[in-house]
Amino acid sequence: MIHSLTLSDVLADHARSRPQAAAVVDGEVRLTYPELEARVTRLAAALAERGTGPGDRVLWLGQNSHAVLELLLACSRLGAVCCPANWRQSTDELRFVLGDLTPRVVVWQPSDAVTPLVQADGAWIRAGQEYEAFLASGSLRAFDQVADTEPVLALYTAAFDGRPNAALLSSAALLAHATSLQIVRRMEPDFAFLASGPLFHVGTTMFALATFHLGGKNVFMPAFDAEELCRLVDAEKVTQAFLFGQMIDAVVAANAGGKYDLSSMRFISHSAEWDAMTTVDDSPWCRSKMGGYGQTEVGGMLTFLGLAPGGSGFAGRPSPLVQVRILGPGGIEVPPGEVGEICARGKTLFSGYFARPELNAAKSADGWHHTGDLGKREPDGTITFIGPKLRMIKSGNENIYPAEVERALKTHPAVADAAVIGVPDDTWHQAVQAVVALKGEATEEELIEHVKGLLASYKKPRRVVFVEAVPKKGFTPDYDALDAAHGGGNYPGA
Amino acid sequence: MIHSLTLSDVLADHARSRPQAAAVVDGEVRLTYPELEARVTRLAAALAERGTGPGDRVLWLGQNSHAVLELLLACSRLGAVCCPANWRQSTDELRFVLGDLTPRVVVWQPSDAVTPLVQADGAWIRAGQEYEAFLASGSLRAFDQVADTEPVLALYTAAFDGRPNAALLSSAALLAHATSLQIVRRMEPDFAFLASGPLFHVGTTMFALATFHLGGKNVFMPAFDAEELCRLVDAEKVTQAFLFGQMIDAVVAANAGGKYDLSSMRFISHSAEWDAMTTVDDSPWCRSKMGGYGQTEVGGMLTFLGLAPGGSGFAGRPSPLVQVRILGPGGIEVPPGEVGEICARGKTLFSGYFARPELNAAKSADGWHHTGDLGKREPDGTITFIGPKLRMIKSGNENIYPAEVERALKTHPAVADAAVIGVPDDTWHQAVQAVVALKGEATEEELIEHVKGLLASYKKPRRVVFVEAVPKKGFTPDYDALDAAHGGGNYPGA
Repeated sequence: MIHSLTLSDVLADHARSRPQAAAVVDGEVRLTYPELEARVTRLAAALAERGTGPGDRVLWLGQNSHAVLELLLACSRLGAVCCPANWRQSTDELRFVLGDLTPRVVVWQPSDAVTPLVQADGAWIRAGQEYEAFLASGSLRAFDQVADTEPVLALYTAAFDGRPNAALLSSAALLAHATSLQIVRRMEPDFAFLASGPLFHVGTTMFALATFHLGGKNVFMPAFDAEELCRLVDAEKVTQAFLFGQMIDAVVAANAGGKYDLSSMRFISHSAEWDAMTTVDDSPWCRSKMGGYGQTEVGGMLTFLGLAPGGSGFAGRPSPLVQVRILGPGGIEVPPGEVGEICARGKTLFSGYFARPELNAAKSADGWHHTGDLGKREPDGTITFIGPKLRMIKSGNENIYPAEVERALKTHPAVADAAVIGVPDDTWHQAVQAVVALKGEATEEELIEHVKGLLASYKKPRRVVFVEAVPKKGFTPDYDALDAAHGGGNYPGA
Repeated sequence: MIHSLTLSDVLADHARSRPQAAAVVDGEVRLTYPELEARVTRLAAALAERGTGPGDRVLWLGQNSHAVLELLLACSRLGAVCCPANWRQSTDELRFVLGDLTPRVVVWQPSDAVTPLVQADGAWIRAGQEYEAFLASGSLRAFDQVADTEPVLALYTAAFDGRPNAALLSSAALLAHATSLQIVRRMEPDFAFLASGPLFHVGTTMFALATFHLGGKNVFMPAFDAEELCRLVDAEKVTQAFLFGQMIDAVVAANAGGKYDLSSMRFISHSAEWDAMTTVDDSPWCRSKMGGYGQTEVGGMLTFLGLAPGGSGFAGRPSPLVQVRILGPGGIEVPPGEVGEICARGKTLFSGYFARPELNAAKSADGWHHTGDLGKREPDGTITFIGPKLRMIKSGNENIYPAEVERALKTHPAVADAAVIGVPDDTWHQAVQAVVALKGEATEEELIEHVKGLLASYKKPRRVVFVEAVPKKGFTPDYDALDAAHGGGNYPGA
């Protein structure tokens, strides 16, 4: 255990090393690290008195709050798992989460979806006064050390078959990911993060935890509000918030008169107005385009654009604490330029999904985490993300991924949307068939030739069917509907 | 093993992610990451054919060379341990290392001390042509995965009782430490490090490995040479070298005419001439004073000044991947302001000394690594390093550390040097006695009053003995000689 470092351990060290530093700001609540440490100790003791022990789950059903960080740290101290769930879900979706996660304690805020679920009995603790009283009931006691390889955070994601799965992340993975952000984002202990995105999403959580890890200040707002964000940035000298695209435009509009000083924000260049209000940051994270490729199951980011300046791949290069391989069927690495599944190993990886042994075995086949996404290596070693894997077409013993062919079709100026299915073929087992919605004029022959110019010839569609609109399931084509409508079938492994 | 990341894994990823990047420059040798990967694979295969397997040791006896990095990476691939030993030691000292480490393979360069040790039989491989032939004899084969918790690097240090001990560091510890440097030093993949200090010392090795970890360029020079350093900085656009104090002055003198362009060096401000030749760096590592507190057993740095801007402690704050506690006897934490032993847990810690089970048990008592050094917390949470612990005096049931009293004595303007011993005392078990060499005038009473003004009264010397010079053992007082000459004894635990 001498090598172990949990989130709870980090907090204990900050309480000693940064006795005056602000840890948390949330409305009227302001906590230094020693104050946060004392509250977390009491909360862990109170949870333990309600029977919460190693491996047990604690569920948060509410908007952003410093209580989410406190519950996570208290779970770390106990070896338990904290899950901040998406409170915007329907009652039915939340009922699934409750049945799936079987939490020992639920801390909740009233809402149309949540309130009907509250049990008269059991450990349902209402956020606010009831939570404060619960916390205050805990004693300042000592706890046994917990291994940092134990899961501590559960985030629902990856609804492969319609229902989401809870990705489990350990302290070791979360802190490893935090260091990768600290390197690429050039974070220092004076970093102040405003959690303006949802804490049930890894994109917000990863920055909140990196800020906590370095001993910086986390500022919480219940939900995004452009004017309130401006006020908090000014008052708390916020370095970064969870913001992109239209959110930034809304902030610019809210601060049109320059009422608030946003110059403490170090951010990527966005628009002339935004750049004038903030400080354009020159860290690798902000220097060109933010981000890279990521998913909850790798703790956030697997690759960073900031580690591949001028690189040709859209996803950049791997985080310093992971390995990435582009693997084909059977776990065989494919050569650069060829499409395969993005697979990973390393310090930031999750510990599997909660209570999904079969899925976990499939996702970690051959000793690699299978992201379920397709990618390829560019000649300069950078990685391009192609799209979700979902399924594979087998034609003439070749593997063809619909997402790759769809991507090629969509580069044609007349194509508005495209999906690719496999139809049974006596000679080739399956034949590639495209389903295309046009926004301009193009013939079947033209589109086939277009794909042939971009990809290996065997990947080109044999036939193109034109439709008004490609049916969707979320962001991806509804392949079941497409197969039913256009004769798809004979998929390998099906 | 899905969470494991060894040095060898990092190399395998760089070979894919950075196919064109320079990994190594050493004289005429220039290697890209794919070239280094191929050489390391062959070297690992050749070592395996000589019987080197998991846990076996490979010894390097020679000056700095890219071969040290190759041997380390090949050992990582095999699960073996690489030891770059101090080739400047005497034949007797090196004979001790050989007997202690019992290496399977020794790669050596001829020298007065080393050459007499070369065995006619056995796996002694001479650096240069013989090493190249050995490496070329290995095949490009695959190896089983190795856990990153296995030791991979051994560095001799800590000669507690006259003979050094080999601190074992795992891939996990070395890479965790590398990320801490990358954060504090703001390292990016374009970082080029010149190994101008010895690779058998963690101060050089830690930067070479952080550079390797990020996919940067390591430039090797056999030993420090001011003019050659200038040439290499200019030719290879070096970002940082292992340099301090007089070495920097020598570089400034060697480049007096401005013959070489050193502007790629991003370094701490040192002198007007140096600052004019280089780029003064604004990373936390370089912003004020470099460094912090460290030792080989924690992978390099345990605390960083760069994480405590304006802090009052001379050692700064803990690295993001460790916890630090100031512990008194029995493993009880002492309050801020009081002196105790600097103890640590966390990701960068070593795996114990090679073949020293009893010492290892003592050093990791109570679940904390005991550094053997004294320190204290300042009110702002920062840490001050006091000096080596070595021994403790017990007087009136109080613990008194000689280093703390010596430090107080040395702040008196008339004191040139001071040592503190404990002499048997019927009432108090031991009494504090100072042995002082003066450079000005001071009486015994004045010095006792001086210490009383700085420390708790029970720590002040009862008696001060004046000597011409305090006898030394390396950098510390020779306490055995002092006890013999001045009647020391009755130490607790002795």
